[in-house]
Amino acid sequence: MSDNQTAPRTYQVIFMPSGRRGQIEAGTTVLEASRQLGVQIESICGGRMTCQKCRVCVEEGNFPKHGIISDSRNLSATSNEEASFLQKLKSPDMRLSCQATIEGDILLFVPEESRGQKQVIRKSATNRAIDVRPAIRKVYVEVDKAELGEHRGDWGRLQEALADQWELSNLTIDLRVLQKLQAALRDGGWAVTITLWQEREVIDVEPGFEDGIYGLAVDIGSTTVASYLCDLRTGEVLATESMMNPQVTYGEDLMSRVSYAMMHPQTGLEKMHKAIIDALNRLAASAAREANIQPRQIHDAVFVGNTTMAHILLGIDPVELGGAPFALATRDAVDVKARELGLRLHPGAYVHVLPAEAGHVGADNVGALIAEEPYRQNETILLVDVGTNAEIVLGNKAWMYSASSPTGPAFEGAQITFGMRAAPGAIERVRIDPETKNGRFRVIGEERWSDEWQIGLDVPLEEQPKHLAAGICGSGIIEVVAEMFLAGILLPDGRFDDTLVHDRIQWNGRRGEYILATAEQTTTGEPIIVTQDDVRNIQLAKAALYAGAKLLMNRAGIDAVDKIVLAGAFGSYIDTKYAMILGLIPDCDLEKVVAVGNAAGDGARIALLNREKRQEAVDISRWVTYVETAVDPDFQNEFVGAIHLPHASDAFPHLEGILPEQTAVAAANRPDRQRRRRVRG
Amino acid sequence: MSDNQTAPRTYQVIFMPSGRRGQIEAGTTVLEASRQLGVQIESICGGRMTCQKCRVCVEEGNFPKHGIISDSRNLSATSNEEASFLQKLKSPDMRLSCQATIEGDILLFVPEESRGQKQVIRKSATNRAIDVRPAIRKVYVEVDKAELGEHRGDWGRLQEALADQWELSNLTIDLRVLQKLQAALRDGGWAVTITLWQEREVIDVEPGFEDGIYGLAVDIGSTTVASYLCDLRTGEVLATESMMNPQVTYGEDLMSRVSYAMMHPQTGLEKMHKAIIDALNRLAASAAREANIQPRQIHDAVFVGNTTMAHILLGIDPVELGGAPFALATRDAVDVKARELGLRLHPGAYVHVLPAEAGHVGADNVGALIAEEPYRQNETILLVDVGTNAEIVLGNKAWMYSASSPTGPAFEGAQITFGMRAAPGAIERVRIDPETKNGRFRVIGEERWSDEWQIGLDVPLEEQPKHLAAGICGSGIIEVVAEMFLAGILLPDGRFDDTLVHDRIQWNGRRGEYILATAEQTTTGEPIIVTQDDVRNIQLAKAALYAGAKLLMNRAGIDAVDKIVLAGAFGSYIDTKYAMILGLIPDCDLEKVVAVGNAAGDGARIALLNREKRQEAVDISRWVTYVETAVDPDFQNEFVGAIHLPHASDAFPHLEGILPEQTAVAAANRPDRQRRRRVRG
Repeated sequence: MSDNQTAPRTYQVIFMPSGRRGQIEAGTTVLEASRQLGVQIESICGGRMTCQKCRVCVEEGNFPKHGIISDSRNLSATSNEEASFLQKLKSPDMRLSCQATIEGDILLFVPEESRGQKQVIRKSATNRAIDVRPAIRKVYVEVDKAELGEHRGDWGRLQEALADQWELSNLTIDLRVLQKLQAALRDGGWAVTITLWQEREVIDVEPGFEDGIYGLAVDIGSTTVASYLCDLRTGEVLATESMMNPQVTYGEDLMSRVSYAMMHPQTGLEKMHKAIIDALNRLAASAAREANIQPRQIHDAVFVGNTTMAHILLGIDPVELGGAPFALATRDAVDVKARELGLRLHPGAYVHVLPAEAGHVGADNVGALIAEEPYRQNETILLVDVGTNAEIVLGNKAWMYSASSPTGPAFEGAQITFGMRAAPGAIERVRIDPETKNGRFRVIGEERWSDEWQIGLDVPLEEQPKHLAAGICGSGIIEVVAEMFLAGILLPDGRFDDTLVHDRIQWNGRRGEYILATAEQTTTGEPIIVTQDDVRNIQLAKAALYAGAKLLMNRAGIDAVDKIVLAGAFGSYIDTKYAMILGLIPDCDLEKVVAVGNAAGDGARIALLNREKRQEAVDISRWVTYVETAVDPDFQNEFVGAIHLPHASDAFPHLEGILPEQTAVAAANRPDRQRRRRVRG
Repeated sequence: MSDNQTAPRTYQVIFMPSGRRGQIEAGTTVLEASRQLGVQIESICGGRMTCQKCRVCVEEGNFPKHGIISDSRNLSATSNEEASFLQKLKSPDMRLSCQATIEGDILLFVPEESRGQKQVIRKSATNRAIDVRPAIRKVYVEVDKAELGEHRGDWGRLQEALADQWELSNLTIDLRVLQKLQAALRDGGWAVTITLWQEREVIDVEPGFEDGIYGLAVDIGSTTVASYLCDLRTGEVLATESMMNPQVTYGEDLMSRVSYAMMHPQTGLEKMHKAIIDALNRLAASAAREANIQPRQIHDAVFVGNTTMAHILLGIDPVELGGAPFALATRDAVDVKARELGLRLHPGAYVHVLPAEAGHVGADNVGALIAEEPYRQNETILLVDVGTNAEIVLGNKAWMYSASSPTGPAFEGAQITFGMRAAPGAIERVRIDPETKNGRFRVIGEERWSDEWQIGLDVPLEEQPKHLAAGICGSGIIEVVAEMFLAGILLPDGRFDDTLVHDRIQWNGRRGEYILATAEQTTTGEPIIVTQDDVRNIQLAKAALYAGAKLLMNRAGIDAVDKIVLAGAFGSYIDTKYAMILGLIPDCDLEKVVAVGNAAGDGARIALLNREKRQEAVDISRWVTYVETAVDPDFQNEFVGAIHLPHASDAFPHLEGILPEQTAVAAANRPDRQRRRRVRG
């Protein structure tokens, strides 16, 4: 300053654990000092000692490394009110940063619970930290009382208070909030907590001080709907609930649901829309119950799902997705009031649906992308999400391609004679002795392998298996086909070796069948068999998946990928070794093949916790180059070449030592293959 | 017709008692014929024989005066169903006008109970040109076809087309539009017409080219709801429909409705909200029918109303308006989707509610302001809108004051012994001979003055008055009190002159009563009288009105106004001379006192037709200085001083020659006023 006024006295202030430091004017509150130094301390009430969030500890002593001698007396004296407050909070040695002012050098520690920038670690193969910066926040505000001769109206006065106390302007207010604003202001003694959406719309008002703030992330799969109820202050998941998508009534797979909408032009969409909305309401209610809150305390929600699920969720007829050119109604992210969809969350709550990439690569894939962030990696990653369609992304921080491969539902157990969903009783693991050709298996819900089962009237109930075999789920069908191949039952072209004679192998004309579970091992008393058609369907599905991946690799001009990420429930259950034996995925170091679980759901949760991720999702969804498999001759070539088991052993160097010596391949070409050999039974 | 087809056969049809006649095509129903001839027959069920409202009598015989021979066989034969219906209604000789069709010349009588009781709102006196620049417009656009390998989505492609062809960007789309976008694009061969709201949101999409665009302007009065369906391309009013505000069930005046909401905290608001929404839906439907469109073709709506009406419309509890400090929920203009309010217009339509000025000066006053534009005038204008409260604005282009005066509902005929709304049979004009003290009057729906009426069994029906007197409406009560004063029946202080002895004056103790209509002149067969209490109520109301105007004049520091504008139905019906004689309004050249009809409704229509007027409304509502009458001692002084008739003759120089020589005033002070004088009967 050029005049002679004394510059205000400043002191050295250091915040731990961030170590941020700087000179702060005397008399500044610790809260304000933290803002000046870029340290985020939580504060909701704006310094009115109601929110309890901004406590800090004073570190006393000489800290030569930091060049500071810190003394708690270098903060302003504790008022009686603050002291009694801290006493009540059982933290008498702490200070409220909104009350204490800087009066000397000080070193302060901001405990975890007071930090504004919360992070959660995403539990998956990749433990990535997520900054908690949701699209909604609560703000406590004190509003001028209504007085005679003053005509701003309650909303006008609230707007002014928000501008003065929180520097918020150009806000709008939901009509439902306006309807209850007057009562809330009076009930709260002219102090209210508002919920703000995207810093621009007031979506709730509650009397007095309220700090709980919650959101719901949902992955709408064709088969399963998974939801995560999150505390939007801490990022913590309070409840995880999932249920079957009730739309399965209208078709097991996507195409049959699109067909249902086509066949019932008036009612089909409406029924499926209502089914998913009802399901979501039940999920939200049970998640809320588990977290001990009310569904109407949920103020924000993020949804992902494939394009058909997203269309039906939004009440948009999915018929256009049923045929070329597979036109989306919109590729954009959608923000819509939950109540417009019939969702019973808070009446002011918004629903955010992540954007899509293309007609068959939807918000679920975009969710997986923002969860896994291949676009930030140096390594080239192949991300595969297997459902009715397989969504495949290949890329790194320089480029990214995506495609949708028409695998059909075989991997989900559909189109398989004894296929079923992953439920108790489903065969999920299979081993076949290459010598004896005898199989054993494990079912979901029973730990023992089938060859250890004790069955019979003489066996005590508690020693009998908890579940008999009811069918074969996705991972089971992968393993049985792979094991049949490894055991030489299947030839590399997928046919049953008709030279084998074995109790487990039976013939339906010229089509072989393998008895995986005997009659006494099943719930029905009929054996569970794997037919030639089952094998063919798996071959078609895996060829489609492989061809999709290869198509993208060809586009990118690469021969191998650095890492394969398997997303989705299917990816979590299958043994990656068998996936590679069958040739579902291209060759890769098996240790670099990871399953990350429901990455789409994680993406929804991330976009719920961090609003910037919503923009990132939009950016990425446009950046990725979508490759249309349906029209690409390269895809057809790769597909035809990928039908065999595995189509070419030299394509999988990482399987060396896992695949059997080339006997099986040789056998296929043996001139004596007509003769049926008797092997040990 | 220019071709050779035979023109359809027509017949002479006459409706009594209105005497309306015309040629009607054979086969037309009587109900339809009545509509063609401008005769209102009640019908609620739309011809389903359930509402029983539309019965008419056939007058048989030769009516040379009307040039018709009428025969009941000239209507279609009575079906068994109709006959049994009429039997049940005990009117076997009547016909249901929705069933009977015209098959020959016929003279029909519409009995009282079948007549549609419509209220009349007059057209404005100011024919101001309004630029038609509505908030919505239609735009025809050709969109790229969806093609394989292109993933913008239909909405993305529409956005690009709108940017390219119309330079429109940053548009959003209503979910309801997104839901039908794909079908519209394909039905229209990739050409659609979109409806755009405020240049920023797509609120409709229609296949191909569509150009009709319609909006609804509504003035929600406490008593009457008036609507104007406008062609937003031409600005033309296509239909004007009004009906009674069904909230009158919950209270005649505003305060009783606020009380109803207070007394029924759960249900009161909901019921009144639902009542007005239902009414608006019926109005919109009947206006659309009149204009030969569907209600869902209405894409925009503007509403005005006093603050209580606006709150209830928006589902906001009006309780805060029931007591000081009369806090509004919001003073802002409100834009909300019509469907959020339950209005059945186009699903994407918005409703715009004009802003308010203060707790008791609402959007209706703001509507009157933008219609009359006193803020653009050099002359100082007093704008008065009389309802349950009188809203008063005083100003010119330099300054403007507004106030609300608690006149109570006396001017609307409430709190008056024989008060009624302005409907057929209401006494609206009164003259009292100063010599004989005999009164005569005119009722709505009958052109002759009562002294020309021919009544009696010997008088042919068509010569009898179409309506007998049923009560006194607002303008009638003004005139009768003023005429009673001019005739010396009332003293300047409002008391009956008890020195008068006259057949028309009777005494109820010491309280005088004036017989305005004799028993044979009324529908009930009982005389219609004006009591001392009626006079007192009018005195209080007019004093409140006058005091409000004077308060603003005092604030502005002026003694006289240049022009007085009377808005509202009341202002249209009263004779301004009587208003000044009573002292409702301050002194002014009577030629400069104009009635402009429903200025609030005109304002709504203007804001519907011109979106810039919506901003002007917001600006003006904030610019005007609101003066709170309730707390101003100046108001109390003016009020007390304004009780007399007129309170001081020197305050009204423009009444010179109209007021009687000062005998009346002198009489009030005469010592002999106890003696009753006999005057000519």
